[in-house]
Amino acid sequence: METVMENSDILEEVINHKNSRPNTQDTAAPVTTPSSAEQVQHRRNSSLQLRKSSLNQDSAPISVVYRPREGSIQLNNVSDGATSIDSSDPPISDLNLLLAATYVEDSLDGRHSDFKVSERHLKLYRLYQNKWGQVALYVFLVIHLCLALFESPAVPGLEMSYWVTMLMETGILIFYIFRVTHISIFTPLTRFWSDTKNILILVLIGITFLDMVIYIGLTESGIYSVRWSRALRPLFAVNFPELRQIRRAFRNLRRTLPDVVNVLFLFFFSLAIFALMAYKLFGGRGLTWVDGRPYFDSYWDSIFDLYVLVTTANNPDIMMPAFDISTYYVIFFVVFLVICFFIYMNIILAVIYNNYRKHLKNEVRKSVYSKRQQLSKAFEILAFDLRNKRVVTRTRFVQLMKFLDDKKNPALINVLWIVLDSDSSDYLEKGEFLKLADLLNVEVSEVVDRTTLIGHYFPKLYNSKPSKLICAIVKNRFFGIFFDILTLVNAVVIGIADSDDTWDDAAEWVFLSLFMLEIFLKLYVLGARRFFKKMWNVFDFVVIGAAFIMGVVEAVVADEQESRLSLDVLLVLRVLRLVKIIGSVNRFKVIVHTITKIFPSLLTYGAVMLVFYYIFAIVGMEAFQGLVRFSGYTTGSELYCGNEKLHNSDFWRDHYCNNNFNDVIHAFIVLFELTVVNQWHVIAYGYATVTDPWARLYFILFHLTCVIVVLNIFTAFVLEVFILEYTASCQGYLESQMEKKIQEMGLSFRKKRPRAMSTVSNENLVVSDSSESEEETESAPHPPTTEVDGRISPGASQFYASGKDISSETDVRFHISKRLKNTEVLLQKMFEKELSTHDLGPNIESLDQDLQDEHAYLVSQNHTLWSL
Amino acid sequence: METVMENSDILEEVINHKNSRPNTQDTAAPVTTPSSAEQVQHRRNSSLQLRKSSLNQDSAPISVVYRPREGSIQLNNVSDGATSIDSSDPPISDLNLLLAATYVEDSLDGRHSDFKVSERHLKLYRLYQNKWGQVALYVFLVIHLCLALFESPAVPGLEMSYWVTMLMETGILIFYIFRVTHISIFTPLTRFWSDTKNILILVLIGITFLDMVIYIGLTESGIYSVRWSRALRPLFAVNFPELRQIRRAFRNLRRTLPDVVNVLFLFFFSLAIFALMAYKLFGGRGLTWVDGRPYFDSYWDSIFDLYVLVTTANNPDIMMPAFDISTYYVIFFVVFLVICFFIYMNIILAVIYNNYRKHLKNEVRKSVYSKRQQLSKAFEILAFDLRNKRVVTRTRFVQLMKFLDDKKNPALINVLWIVLDSDSSDYLEKGEFLKLADLLNVEVSEVVDRTTLIGHYFPKLYNSKPSKLICAIVKNRFFGIFFDILTLVNAVVIGIADSDDTWDDAAEWVFLSLFMLEIFLKLYVLGARRFFKKMWNVFDFVVIGAAFIMGVVEAVVADEQESRLSLDVLLVLRVLRLVKIIGSVNRFKVIVHTITKIFPSLLTYGAVMLVFYYIFAIVGMEAFQGLVRFSGYTTGSELYCGNEKLHNSDFWRDHYCNNNFNDVIHAFIVLFELTVVNQWHVIAYGYATVTDPWARLYFILFHLTCVIVVLNIFTAFVLEVFILEYTASCQGYLESQMEKKIQEMGLSFRKKRPRAMSTVSNENLVVSDSSESEEETESAPHPPTTEVDGRISPGASQFYASGKDISSETDVRFHISKRLKNTEVLLQKMFEKELSTHDLGPNIESLDQDLQDEHAYLVSQNHTLWSL
Repeated sequence: METVMENSDILEEVINHKNSRPNTQDTAAPVTTPSSAEQVQHRRNSSLQLRKSSLNQDSAPISVVYRPREGSIQLNNVSDGATSIDSSDPPISDLNLLLAATYVEDSLDGRHSDFKVSERHLKLYRLYQNKWGQVALYVFLVIHLCLALFESPAVPGLEMSYWVTMLMETGILIFYIFRVTHISIFTPLTRFWSDTKNILILVLIGITFLDMVIYIGLTESGIYSVRWSRALRPLFAVNFPELRQIRRAFRNLRRTLPDVVNVLFLFFFSLAIFALMAYKLFGGRGLTWVDGRPYFDSYWDSIFDLYVLVTTANNPDIMMPAFDISTYYVIFFVVFLVICFFIYMNIILAVIYNNYRKHLKNEVRKSVYSKRQQLSKAFEILAFDLRNKRVVTRTRFVQLMKFLDDKKNPALINVLWIVLDSDSSDYLEKGEFLKLADLLNVEVSEVVDRTTLIGHYFPKLYNSKPSKLICAIVKNRFFGIFFDILTLVNAVVIGIADSDDTWDDAAEWVFLSLFMLEIFLKLYVLGARRFFKKMWNVFDFVVIGAAFIMGVVEAVVADEQESRLSLDVLLVLRVLRLVKIIGSVNRFKVIVHTITKIFPSLLTYGAVMLVFYYIFAIVGMEAFQGLVRFSGYTTGSELYCGNEKLHNSDFWRDHYCNNNFNDVIHAFIVLFELTVVNQWHVIAYGYATVTDPWARLYFILFHLTCVIVVLNIFTAFVLEVFILEYTASCQGYLESQMEKKIQEMGLSFRKKRPRAMSTVSNENLVVSDSSESEEETESAPHPPTTEVDGRISPGASQFYASGKDISSETDVRFHISKRLKNTEVLLQKMFEKELSTHDLGPNIESLDQDLQDEHAYLVSQNHTLWSL
Repeated sequence: METVMENSDILEEVINHKNSRPNTQDTAAPVTTPSSAEQVQHRRNSSLQLRKSSLNQDSAPISVVYRPREGSIQLNNVSDGATSIDSSDPPISDLNLLLAATYVEDSLDGRHSDFKVSERHLKLYRLYQNKWGQVALYVFLVIHLCLALFESPAVPGLEMSYWVTMLMETGILIFYIFRVTHISIFTPLTRFWSDTKNILILVLIGITFLDMVIYIGLTESGIYSVRWSRALRPLFAVNFPELRQIRRAFRNLRRTLPDVVNVLFLFFFSLAIFALMAYKLFGGRGLTWVDGRPYFDSYWDSIFDLYVLVTTANNPDIMMPAFDISTYYVIFFVVFLVICFFIYMNIILAVIYNNYRKHLKNEVRKSVYSKRQQLSKAFEILAFDLRNKRVVTRTRFVQLMKFLDDKKNPALINVLWIVLDSDSSDYLEKGEFLKLADLLNVEVSEVVDRTTLIGHYFPKLYNSKPSKLICAIVKNRFFGIFFDILTLVNAVVIGIADSDDTWDDAAEWVFLSLFMLEIFLKLYVLGARRFFKKMWNVFDFVVIGAAFIMGVVEAVVADEQESRLSLDVLLVLRVLRLVKIIGSVNRFKVIVHTITKIFPSLLTYGAVMLVFYYIFAIVGMEAFQGLVRFSGYTTGSELYCGNEKLHNSDFWRDHYCNNNFNDVIHAFIVLFELTVVNQWHVIAYGYATVTDPWARLYFILFHLTCVIVVLNIFTAFVLEVFILEYTASCQGYLESQMEKKIQEMGLSFRKKRPRAMSTVSNENLVVSDSSESEEETESAPHPPTTEVDGRISPGASQFYASGKDISSETDVRFHISKRLKNTEVLLQKMFEKELSTHDLGPNIESLDQDLQDEHAYLVSQNHTLWSL
């Protein structure tokens, strides 16, 4: 028995179900596979070489019993259910269930399951995917990046000796090594080493250690040295498999780049020609810029100045000296701007948008195929042959669901089963099973008890006359309108009030207490759960609550030192209240809704930006630290930002001394300013003046990567996602099917309850589109319900199979959230209808390679797309 | 007979063919319609009310013979061919042919045919559509707009008395009245008065006259007056039916606006909240901008300054005073920029792009339906009943073609016939006929004689050994490479040369003669026709030729006065030569090709911009003329741009005195600067300083309309068109079908000729994609052919019907240009596959009204689009 388990290390990648089809090479074997099976190495070309290994050829099928609670494994030699075809529900081993559950979980989270199929490696794999391990990794990554705050040049007051930061970094690197080693244990060796991510992490760790050693050596020998490997730190975040979204964004960036390069070449060629023209036309005439700098005096300066003009940063200024000589010269600049700014920049956006779409689609397709292949593996493990079909029974499905989430409500599992079992055969076939991941991604919240806490514990009080009057008032339309008007009045008061006035402070307390009253009333009437479900209520609660706490602290402590900052925060909080009005204006709803929905997806691009910022910040700090210092503009000793070279420069005249690279925070702020583009040339000239004219290259590079490429990709993403969200209905196919079933079964949260009082208003019938309005549709007061168990006895489960109304059986209600769980789901929706349900797709690895065919395919697709 | 003709005035809109279907209400009646037919007024709801009026009920069908060459009309009472069903080719009256041809022409040009169906009105209609009438209108429109150059405040040196310009304007207005009257005569009265375009033109004319009278009255009474109606001048251009493209762009703009308004509202609301926050946070602290202006001192100033920040124009400057106090304040600006600049601006683009697409699609659909309805009318006139089908015979088709273009080659007509007659039935059915307009829009150029002029007249010389050697050299790959390198060397020489050097002048003459030699050699070898077919050759010819002429003039005249300008032009011409290299680099070809293809379409947006510019320029001139003057920065008397108020302002410090509204050219330049956005706030503050703070509203309005709306629509258009052109193949369905037939018949320009010499290279077989490479594919030298008639005898026409190779019969060769004729065709291609071939669409007028359904339809379409 033990030898069989050791052999199972190499059981991975074996196909063992009877009807092997070309698409299922990746379907991994359950551990019950006979030991005679072989490891198939070259899977890509192997669909014909695969040997069909029958389950029943072997004498003794093996079952591995795995008890998750005890952590022990027990091997039994039992007769596998697959042999008894007429048995409707053969037993399944716990290990097989664990394996299937792992595949389902991976497909839910969009991971590849790269582990050797044995219980030890499976355990290790599950340990690696443990949430706390991932959180630890995130924390270490953040700390690693934050080290720049303490390393020289550090933020004033935070400086640490390099020994301290290096010790911390060493600790972090050791954690990285630990994680990678963990991966290397459960991953098949060839897979591990063919994955560039792992190799890159190891190389990065090596480089960092090397850099540390060199730095210590040089510094201790008294030679000035640079910790250059710090610029590579964000690459760790990109290469750990946990940060898939960022890596995907980077992959998309990388693939979009080559297509943009041609346009950029053409752009720079045009720029070079225009620069030559400007240099010959305007150079050598003794003209000067306003600040006295010679005008188009050298060819390279001409190129730089015209590049700046393309970014519009020196827009009319560059034209004025020539304009003053002759109006005709304006023609040159107009032609240049029309061609290089209005046309080229738009065409660069068009090329990026076009290619981004193409590659994004490919990415999403790949992830959908990967998900389906995982589910297919899980299916093969759970399924057995029934009348020549491989099917999964309800019992096994329930087992799987219980395994995935111990607390899952049986009624919900029942709903899931009914939705999945679309042909009501009481068995899941493969096509039906493949929908599982998408279905589980539909966020269903269980609404067990809908009475408020007060109504629950003090039913008498809650149901008294005054209490009911309050409920009626709060639910009245004018309650909301009154507080909206109050907010507007508050806005006017804030606007008028002078900070020296005393009445201002009193008025603020009046408003604050009124708004707090609003919150308390709402909380009383709706109950905490329903109150905090609405985004605007949470916002309101936080803003008002924080204002109250800070106001009290302010009044009690009254510390002159910190007063200014806390007063500022209070003021911001006060003004932020006004934002609530947006939620009340109907015409904004669609837009606000769309923005809040795409916002999380936008954060991915924030992370991409951060990676670039970090690299450029480290490089900038090493190059420019200490050259420019800010210490006010009044003292004589610190004139010209502490650098005599800046005498008479725009940099000094515009008071840009604070735009320096003296610590990582300042560096980030400067880079943000450069991202907004305007006046970047002044900053670039400033640093070119204090160092070398070639320093401008740093700024040009930053503009090219972060503005021309990344920001345009961001725009492409917003265009794509916004148009999708704005036009298409928010609900996907599965969501609506799920909702339909839930409603059919009378389990819908919104469904009118039979026990509801007669005061049910018409609003109840309105099926609203946006999740914000959920509360309005449920404005009817409802009686307190008695405590509800939420579970249905297992014996009753057969009863629900038909999908008939069981609302009287249970008080559990479900609500389908229309918010999307993550970017992945959102993106998938873009292209989901293109993929047929049963298509498992080609091998995932080959998807990367066949971009050539892909391209041709997409072009034809695009053709169809536009011709619609 | 005469009375019948008078009655035919009301024959319009009558359906007279026997099987009237609901879709063909618009099909107009041939003039042979019996006079008993009625005018159908309410066509929209009338598909069921239409009376079937049989052609044969009348005793005497009428035929109107119209002799285009003589201009005379003759009415004959002939037996109409429609009565004799067995006759395969009944005669058709000239007037009917004229009517059909008019419909076809209108559908070709995308016009509505809004004329009363009678020969007089038809003649008037055709007269109106006459090319010269349209050219005259364009000229008058341009002159009308250019009047601003001469009116006060005029361009220095061009000022005219207001009597002169008013006389000119009166003349122009009279011409407009003449045109509108012309329209009113041939258009049905109800149609004429229900068309807002016509009414608007009349109102504009009235307003202009009124304004002139008021102006004269006031001015002569010595009261200062303003010619405010001048701002309305560009509206004439928008409302005359001749400028369809511009009007369509405006319509699209108008329809896109309401959807953007919500986002703009939300944007301004957010701006107001942020401004309140900034005002409270930073105001009243005694901070100042760098120029000493108080910092966030009033609420309105705060809004304006933050609006400027959204345009990034005052990017780091606005932050620096707060940044200098505390780094925390940067958070405010970062959050503001992320929300209001990065997110809102991209969402505005997304909304505009989304809606623009939607409305554009609707526009294109409308124009396609309109085109088909015209063709359907033409078909009903030409067709007769044959075996229960309405068909058009070849004879009538040839008649129509000959009528449309007298010089059309019979072989080409034959090709058109074969392509149209897709089922080879030798009759055109309606569905086949409806393709005619698209087919005629395929640009087919006839290549009759391909020998060069020299080869033609001096065959001996051309075929001599040295001549052949030259041909071989020129056609060699290295010939092109040599001249590309020479161009690069030229670039280096231009870069190095100092204008004072004497060797520079000599080198220039050497280069110039070498390049001229290249052109002469190419001309000699290829012949003028083939040489000038290639865009780059034309460019080369113009640039080198102009440089030569100007160089000679320069050398001979040597006028010191004008020398500077002509030297500048020479220099620009010299540098422009380098542009030719772009044509030689292969990787640029796709992009350059795409850009040149979409360029004409972009001009439409240039025109839209011009309309806005003109209006804002006139308003700006009236508001700001003479307040700011430029007269150098050295003289003491003209300090502060001649306005003491600008003392110490950025406007003066940045030397912006030339950015004034003192004449229309300067105003246009300022507006262009404002379009590029950067530093617009300095200009705005400048004019606010010399007038009133509210003057900034003018600049905000300009930014909102021209930058946020029009430029984003421009971007949307570029995105749409570029993606279409870049991904889809350039050839449409009809083009390729046409080309296939031409090739089948051996009439392709590229086809290897049987008489070609044995030196035919392999390149000949390459079918290249871009029209530029056409020359390379035909590099084989060919013998001079004897003069060729180009026409095929009519008797032979039956011979070609089969589409077999007839290349030996004629020397005519055709070449399908891949360039698109106009924007309309390009746009149509976007959506053409969506429309089924036979669909005539709903009534054109109703298309405007049913936007509601349209919207729902498009949303669902969009849904399909994205889910692809």
